[in-house]
Formats: sequence, structure tokens, C-alpha cells
Amino acid sequence: MADAPAVARTSAAVRAALDGPLRAGRSIGLVPTMGALHEGHLSLVRAARAGTDVVVVSIFVNPLQFGPGEDLDAYPRTFDADLAALTGEGVDLVFAPEATAYTPADARTTVHVVGLTDGLEAASRPTHFDGVTTIVTKLFSTVRPHRAYFGEKDFQQQAVIRRMARDLDLGVEVITRPVVRDPDGLALSSRNTYLSPDERRDALALSAALAAAQRGWAGDADATRADLLGTLGSAPGVRLDYAEVIDPETLEPLEGVHDGPAQAVVAAHVGDTRLIDTAPLQPASTDRA
Amino acid sequence: MADAPAVARTSAAVRAALDGPLRAGRSIGLVPTMGALHEGHLSLVRAARAGTDVVVVSIFVNPLQFGPGEDLDAYPRTFDADLAALTGEGVDLVFAPEATAYTPADARTTVHVVGLTDGLEAASRPTHFDGVTTIVTKLFSTVRPHRAYFGEKDFQQQAVIRRMARDLDLGVEVITRPVVRDPDGLALSSRNTYLSPDERRDALALSAALAAAQRGWAGDADATRADLLGTLGSAPGVRLDYAEVIDPETLEPLEGVHDGPAQAVVAAHVGDTRLIDTAPLQPASTDRA
Repeated sequence: MADAPAVARTSAAVRAALDGPLRAGRSIGLVPTMGALHEGHLSLVRAARAGTDVVVVSIFVNPLQFGPGEDLDAYPRTFDADLAALTGEGVDLVFAPEATAYTPADARTTVHVVGLTDGLEAASRPTHFDGVTTIVTKLFSTVRPHRAYFGEKDFQQQAVIRRMARDLDLGVEVITRPVVRDPDGLALSSRNTYLSPDERRDALALSAALAAAQRGWAGDADATRADLLGTLGSAPGVRLDYAEVIDPETLEPLEGVHDGPAQAVVAAHVGDTRLIDTAPLQPASTDRA
Repeated sequence: MADAPAVARTSAAVRAALDGPLRAGRSIGLVPTMGALHEGHLSLVRAARAGTDVVVVSIFVNPLQFGPGEDLDAYPRTFDADLAALTGEGVDLVFAPEATAYTPADARTTVHVVGLTDGLEAASRPTHFDGVTTIVTKLFSTVRPHRAYFGEKDFQQQAVIRRMARDLDLGVEVITRPVVRDPDGLALSSRNTYLSPDERRDALALSAALAAAQRGWAGDADATRADLLGTLGSAPGVRLDYAEVIDPETLEPLEGVHDGPAQAVVAAHVGDTRLIDTAPLQPASTDRA
């Protein structure tokens, strides 16, 4: 039976554990998580395992990325189950710092990405991305990974982090992996545990609308946006926050007919739970053979 | 005759040059400069040489730390003389990136230190420190130093960077070295070249006032502040910007009698040239034997 991965609780312990592999020229892969691990996270761990020599998973419910009134206290914390889920997955180290030590009350430094963090998620969560970029910069400094793995579901987040890593020359390749879904289409999320059975059924409207957008995509951003807004605006139990068709790099809304890459992104409340989902829209082409 | 140090112009070249030493477990020392090197910079280089295995000097006139109307275009650029000055100083690598490549127009990421960057220099130069912290974070990421060396003259700068390195767990020990002065007391600065002979004589009021503050220091911040303001407020040719007695870590103005560490900091225009200077104030003690 496989052993559970080693756990480091402090920056010093992480650095000490990774100094040897780094000197030996081994590549480090980091999967940053807030715990409550599901198959989406495990798909990132497996990608890291395939792509790097040493796999580090951070488990840290980052208080900086929660706004006032959000679900910081309620956010699921399932450390023992997380360790069990990672056992046998070839994880070399779990970094699980204490919040009081890793985000001390007297810290004063923030990292901000201008522009990419104005709309979409940021419209509802104005301080969210500064919390993300600040802590991810810190995690990258502590762990010194060569590659870091993020889920596409948090589409804006991965775009912001990709930009930050480039702008600050962090030396980290940001790798984004596709959304992992339950068989009925629901995007996996640690917040799905908040959903009642009825809410879970209502929530399927998001992935269904995105799947329809993918099937129907003919390069017309306005038409696809209107379809998403129409479908999700009237879906039972769904209170739509936004539905957009965006440029995957700049995150700017696309207008009219477009022959480059595009991404559909949606956010909605189902009951008290805020869910997001996304789907790439293939470039329009007359020849898909 | 000693050879001039090797020069790297790109992040990729720096990383390639330092991968070997890092894997060999050698310590890296970084001296970040804007060029126009003087003995103050060389004192930092010598400290790096004594304290680390591999010495890297960056020479980069960082456009992000200059505000509108400041002296970005006029700032002295003396690359050949700088290389000559570093020859024989045991510098392993000079990193001199192109501004268009290292601070591209489309970069969107900034690093900000809250609070420490509100007063003193920031009162006159509101965007200055974001430019400093953003580029120093980037330099630290590119060079991956174990220690970085800063001059005490830019007192607020070293305090801000020290805080940033701690908050973001950058793994860099920030080392601050004393102000280096001309024999008459003038703090060395690349901007001293702007001064006419008359202005240079007027500028001596700054270091003279600080020396008097050091001699007279008896722990009374209000009295010392009043002395500095009185002396420098009426010094010929000096247009005082600020004179403060501060806590060296928080940079907050000290009030009343104080028995801990304190720092005097001054800034003034002499002619069109803005100069800064500083001096540590020794803790008051009845027994200095």
C-alpha cells in the first residue's frame, strides 16, 4: 500500500526538501490547490507527474482571495481526505502552511495584474485576483517550480497567472488543463458540495448551455453570447451573473464574427452557491476533417 | 590586467549563466543598480564579493520608477565607464537588459507595498516605489540571488524591498550598506553630476545637518526633527522637501523621546537636482563606553 505524501508546514521545510532535487537538476511541478480535492485536481497532479520530476501539491485556503461576506469560513477543509486522495498519485511533497504564518496580518505586499482583473469574476469579486496573484507569487517563490498546473474552469485565473508569470519573469511555465466534469456534465468544483440535489440538477444548465455553444459555434460572438444569455437568463433556479465570449488571452469580450480562438465563460448563483464554468470555442473552419 | 565582466542582455542568458553555479550550490549575490556607478555602488559590489560566491551586478535604468517630468531621459548612462569600474572587482556577470524587452509596453503586473510607500519619497514621487518593487521582484526572479545589496542612502527603498522580500517569501536576504560620502560629506549619488560647483557647495548642508543630528541625538525625535527643519529650512540654495526622524522598520515618524533605533532622513532640491540623504541615530544611552 502506498504511503501518504510527505507534508511540509513551513516555507523553510519546503525549501529544505527541494534544495537537493533542484541542485540535482530535477524539474519541479507545482499544483496549487485550496484542498477539498476532486478529480479535477487529480488530473492536474497526473499532468505534473507526467511533465516534471518532482511533484508538489500545495493545499492552502488562501484568505486573501475571499472578499467580505464570501465563504472563507464555510469553504470545505478536508485535509485527511485530501492526503488520502493524493496517496498513490506519485506526489513527492504536500505544502500545507498555516494561514497565520503564510499570510500574516502584518504583510503589506500585493501583486496586481492591471486590466485582466477588471471584469468577469472581478466584477463580483473586486479583491479576488489580487489575493490570488499575491499568494501564487509567494507559492512560486517558496516552491520554485519549473511548471505550475491550473484548471481551465478558473479561466480568468489561469490567464491572469500566465500573464503575471511572464511579466515578472517568474521562470514558471503555466500549464492549463481542461475542465473535468461529472458524467452528467457538471464541472467539478469543491463548491459543488454546497448544492442540494435540486440545485445540482438546476446547475446542469451551465454546462448544457456551454456544450450547445460549442456545437453551434460558427465564429459569431454576438450570436453565441445572446444564446447563452437567453438560455441561462431563463433557466430555472439559476441566477446568472455573466455569460461572455472572450479573447482567451486578453479576456476582452469579442464582438461580431471572429475567426481566431474564443472562450465562453459563465458564472451564476444556484441557490446560495456561486458556480463558474467555461468552454473553448473552436476557430470557425469549413474543413474540420 | 583584469578582464571586464561578462555581460548578459537577456533573462535567458542570465538564467543560462547561473544554472550551473546554482546547481553546484554556490551562493549568488546581486547588486541592482541603474549604472552611473560610483564608490557607493562599488562598496556594495565588495560586500557581495565578500558575502557570496557569484556576484551579479544589474545595470538598468528602470523606466517604471520615474514619474512624469522626472529625469528618466537625462539620467546618466555611462555603460562603458561602468564596465571599466567593475573590472577587477570580481564581478562574475553584468545583467544589462534592454528596456523595451525587460519592461515591455504591454506588461500589466505591478508589485505594491502598502503603507511603507505612502510618505517621504512617495509624497513627491507617488508611483516611484511601485516601479521599484515591480522591477526588483523581476530582477530577483531572473537572477535568483541568495543575497541582494542596497545602499542605505535610499533608506525608504531598502526598507520597502526588505518588507517585500519577506512578505512574498522571495528567499533573498536584503543587505543594506552604509552611505558612502565624498571627503567633504556629500553622499555619493549618480545625480551629483547634475550639480554646478555652487550647488554642490550648497548641497553640503544636508550631510552637515545630519552629522549634527547624530552628534546631538539624545533620543528626542521632536527636538531633532525641529533642528533639521530649522537648519535645512534656512540653508542657502536648499529647497527642503522633507526632514524626518522615523522608525527604521515601519518608517513611521517618531514622536517625543524614544530609546529604540531611529533614522534621520532628508530630501531637498538644490537647483534643479533632487537629493536625498540619511543617517542612523544611535539609541540613547548613558553608557557608551
